[in-house]
Formats: sequence, C-alpha cells, structure tokens
Amino acid sequence: MFIYNVTGIRVRYADTDQMGYVYYGNYARYYEIGRVEALRALGFHYKEMEDSGIMMPVYDLYCKFHQPARYDDLLTIRVKILRPPTVRVCFEYEIRNQEQLLLNTGSTTLVFQNIKTGKLCPCPEDLSAKLRPFFSEHNEWLV
Amino acid sequence: MFIYNVTGIRVRYADTDQMGYVYYGNYARYYEIGRVEALRALGFHYKEMEDSGIMMPVYDLYCKFHQPARYDDLLTIRVKILRPPTVRVCFEYEIRNQEQLLLNTGSTTLVFQNIKTGKLCPCPEDLSAKLRPFFSEHNEWLV
Amino acid sequence: MFIYNVTGIRVRYADTDQMGYVYYGNYARYYEIGRVEALRALGFHYKEMEDSGIMMPVYDLYCKFHQPARYDDLLTIRVKILRPPTVRVCFEYEIRNQEQLLLNTGSTTLVFQNIKTGKLCPCPEDLSAKLRPFFSEHNEWLV
Amino acid sequence: MFIYNVTGIRVRYADTDQMGYVYYGNYARYYEIGRVEALRALGFHYKEMEDSGIMMPVYDLYCKFHQPARYDDLLTIRVKILRPPTVRVCFEYEIRNQEQLLLNTGSTTLVFQNIKTGKLCPCPEDLSAKLRPFFSEHNEWLV
Repeated sequence: MFIYNVTGIRVRYADTDQMGYVYYGNYARYYEIGRVEALRALGFHYKEMEDSGIMMPVYDLYCKFHQPARYDDLLTIRVKILRPPTVRVCFEYEIRNQEQLLLNTGSTTLVFQNIKTGKLCPCPEDLSAKLRPFFSEHNEWLV
Repeated sequence: MFIYNVTGIRVRYADTDQMGYVYYGNYARYYEIGRVEALRALGFHYKEMEDSGIMMPVYDLYCKFHQPARYDDLLTIRVKILRPPTVRVCFEYEIRNQEQLLLNTGSTTLVFQNIKTGKLCPCPEDLSAKLRPFFSEHNEWLV
Repeated sequence: MFIYNVTGIRVRYADTDQMGYVYYGNYARYYEIGRVEALRALGFHYKEMEDSGIMMPVYDLYCKFHQPARYDDLLTIRVKILRPPTVRVCFEYEIRNQEQLLLNTGSTTLVFQNIKTGKLCPCPEDLSAKLRPFFSEHNEWLV
Repeated sequence: MFIYNVTGIRVRYADTDQMGYVYYGNYARYYEIGRVEALRALGFHYKEMEDSGIMMPVYDLYCKFHQPARYDDLLTIRVKILRPPTVRVCFEYEIRNQEQLLLNTGSTTLVFQNIKTGKLCPCPEDLSAKLRPFFSEHNEWLV
C-alpha cells in the first residue's frame, strides 16, 4: 500500500458557499491536488505523462462529507493506493483540518488513456515501477 | 418514484479543462441544478426552505463518468427520487447530451439540518406532502 | 451598436461564497454566457469558429460590483458591442436581477488568435458580416 | 508602499480550460490568495476580522492577460498596496511563472463593511497600524 500526506492546503473564500462551508463540488479539486502531489513525491510528474501522450481521465468519484471544511481551514489530505495500477488506478482520500478532525473521505478511479487514439492503455511502466515496491509480497508481510 | 427532466443546460468554457472535457468536479454543479429545478417544478423552492431555517447539506456524492461532456453540449439531467424523504433524501441523476448519449450517472444523499441549532431534522411537511403522491401504494402498484 | 439581453441566468449555490454573495470571480462566467449567447442570437456559433481554427482568448477584464447577486437570483445580462471588431473585440456587460436592480457592470476585450500558429488574426469575415449592419452610418442615424 | 511575494501557487487541472490555459475567471482566486497571504505575512488574519464583524467585499476588479498560465505552472504573485487604506483599500498584482515570465497584472479595490448593518466603515485600526510603517514619510524618503 502506498500512503502519502499532502499538507498545507488552505481553504479559500472561492471554495466556500453561502452555508459557510466548502461547496461539495470543490472536494474534487482537493482530491486532484492530493493524488498529483502524492505521485510527485514519488518522482512521477503527471504533466510529463500527459506530454508523452497518456492522460488519466476520472472514471468514478465518491465523496462522503463527515464535517464541513470552513474558510481558512488548513487541510491535510491523506492519499492511499491500495492495489497496483492496471488499466486503472484507484486513489482513496481522507481530509482532516488543522485540529486533525476528519472532515471528508472519498475515492476516485482513474483510467489510462492514449490521447491520440482515445483507447485505454495499461499504466506506463515508469509509474508502475515507482509504485511496485509498495506492493511487494515482502512489504505486505511487514504490514 | 418521482422523475423529472431538466433540459437546456449548456456546457460553458468555464466548465471545461485542458482535456477538452468538463472537469470532473463540475458535475456536482449540474446535480445541484438538477435537484433544485426538479423540486421547483413540484412547487417547492429550496431558497424558501433555507429562509425558514432549514438547509440541506450534502452527505455523500457518487459520480460515474461514462463519456465526457464537451464544450457547448446541451445537457439534459434526469432526476429521480426513489424513496420518500426522512431525515435524508437521495437523488439519482442521469446526464445526456443533445444526441441522447448517456454521459454521466450519479447520486447524492442530502440531510435536513436546522440552521440555528445545527441538528438534523425530518423533511419539512411541505416538501413531504408534495412528494407523497409519487410514493403512494396505488402508485407502486402501477409501477 | 449591437445590444442583446441574455435572460434567465439563475444563481446557483456553487456560485455563492460565505458572504452569501456570488463570489467575485464567478462574474467572468456570466460574462462568458452573455457574449456567447449574444453572438449565437446573431447566428454565430463560437464553437464552430474554434473548430475552424480560430479561438478568442480574453485580453482584459474589468468588473464593478454595485450590489451583490444572491442565491437563486434570476439574472439578465445586457451585452453591448460598441465598435466593429478588428483583431480584437470589446464587449460591455450590465447585470440586473429579477427586480431590474443593477448589480454589476463590466467589460472584456478578446482577441482573435490562430490556434495552430498562436498568431493574432483579424475577426473572421463571417462574424464581421453579421455585425456590420449594427455599425452602419444609416443605423447610427436611427439611434 | 507595501510589497509582498506569495510563492508556490500551483496551477491545477481544475483551473484550466479547453484552450489549455487557466480560465480567465480563475485569476480572481489567485488574487484572493495573494492579498490574504500578504496580510497574513503582516500578522493580520482576514478570518479574524470577519469574526469580529467586518468583511471586505470586492468593489472592482481589473485583469490583464499578458501570457497564459498553464497546467502545473508554479506561480508567484507580487502584491502591492500603494496607498494607506481608508474606507477602501486597493491591491495590485503581478503574476509570474517559474521562469519569471510575466503572465498577468491586475488590481482590486475592496471596501470595509460592517456585516450586521451592511454599512461601509473605515479600515480597522489593527490593520491600519500594521500597514502604517510602509507609508510613513521617512519610508518614502528611503524609497
């Protein structure tokens, strides 16, 4: 399993709605930040993959809103990848505020797609290799 | 079961991302439009409920992205309520483009909450009464 | 001068912020709706121009916030083009609510740009022709 | 004059549009980040002012788009306050990318407003005091 914490995500006025909460559609942006920064921490740059001709559209999204995030909150997103990527990869997310209160949990499934042909394709070897150590049998024993 | 089609929702440049698709977080806005207009068609105005002291925060959200919505597409959202509201109400959504192609399906659960106390509360009788005919035993026989 | 009123733009929860007002950055979306629908009313479809290889990025934006737009307001946007387009075109906007109260005024300058080369280019003849009658000397006398 | 640089603002997929550029309405969010973080660096927290009953709605906005910001760009926003705040305060902004290329310039005027009464009011003394040293005669000589 791969786990990474992305810290320091500040809730902006732009993110709130008239309830004084973060609008429920804006968590998708936080999830995007979470997964892109988690992969960047591994040395994998999403932009470079897209420049090389493969993009990752989102296939499904699930969010559960436990407590509202509020203006100026400083969020931490815990990102998990539980299984090695195939033609798809699933990310799980937990968002907490500055007091470690759990605000939101969710998940997204993304697929790998050839930009030119529009066809699905396997996870690029570059990314698979970077994730492999987190899913090795040995590693599972340790967990 | 209550079903309503909201038509004529135009995809704007603001909604797209650099894939040329509607950004996955923006479907939450389409769902909001769908449920609010479906209730308005019943004669129920969300704003008035909020002015009377009850709001409906979203408890969970699920979206599945079958095909991308694209710039200038003219969307129709089919909104369904399958069960009478209690302290919560579940909406289901299907989004199609101008060629009736199914682009997206999803659901949201919303709860009823007293704005002042922050406590959950049952669905206001006004709304329950407007929805009741769609869930009558007679109606179920017909289905 | 070309003038067109775009009506029936509903303020959504997604557009508001914790002041209970429309977030100031979201007026750019209303302006986009205004200018695209004004041109569509002339028989000009922005999407087709982009498909033909010319896009219209925004060069500058000005907004003045007279009164806040609020949730569920039903907005009308008056769009004006005061001068014939050249390599650029300037749109002016006035936004009023359902009580005809003036909420917002603004303007945007957009340029015509060849998508492949990135170079600026003159307004396509198709669009110029559709706008020409509104800027004729005869028309000015009538005004 | 007060000047502050806010660094490390990453352009997200959510911010882009189908031109592959940051959507023109999203610069308002960058400006918000710029001014709030510039004041935080002074020891002034916008949230606390709002909790104390004064908010700062935006009165006008100007943006000029020199070069497009693109996905994954790492932006720096230079924020300037040229004159001491009165019942209003004007912020100027310059946005550069990771190569120091100037992408965008703009300005916003904000007013101070009593949340309960809705009336405009002078800049709170707390904020005025923190900004005063930057506008002293002595300081001007130094500049």
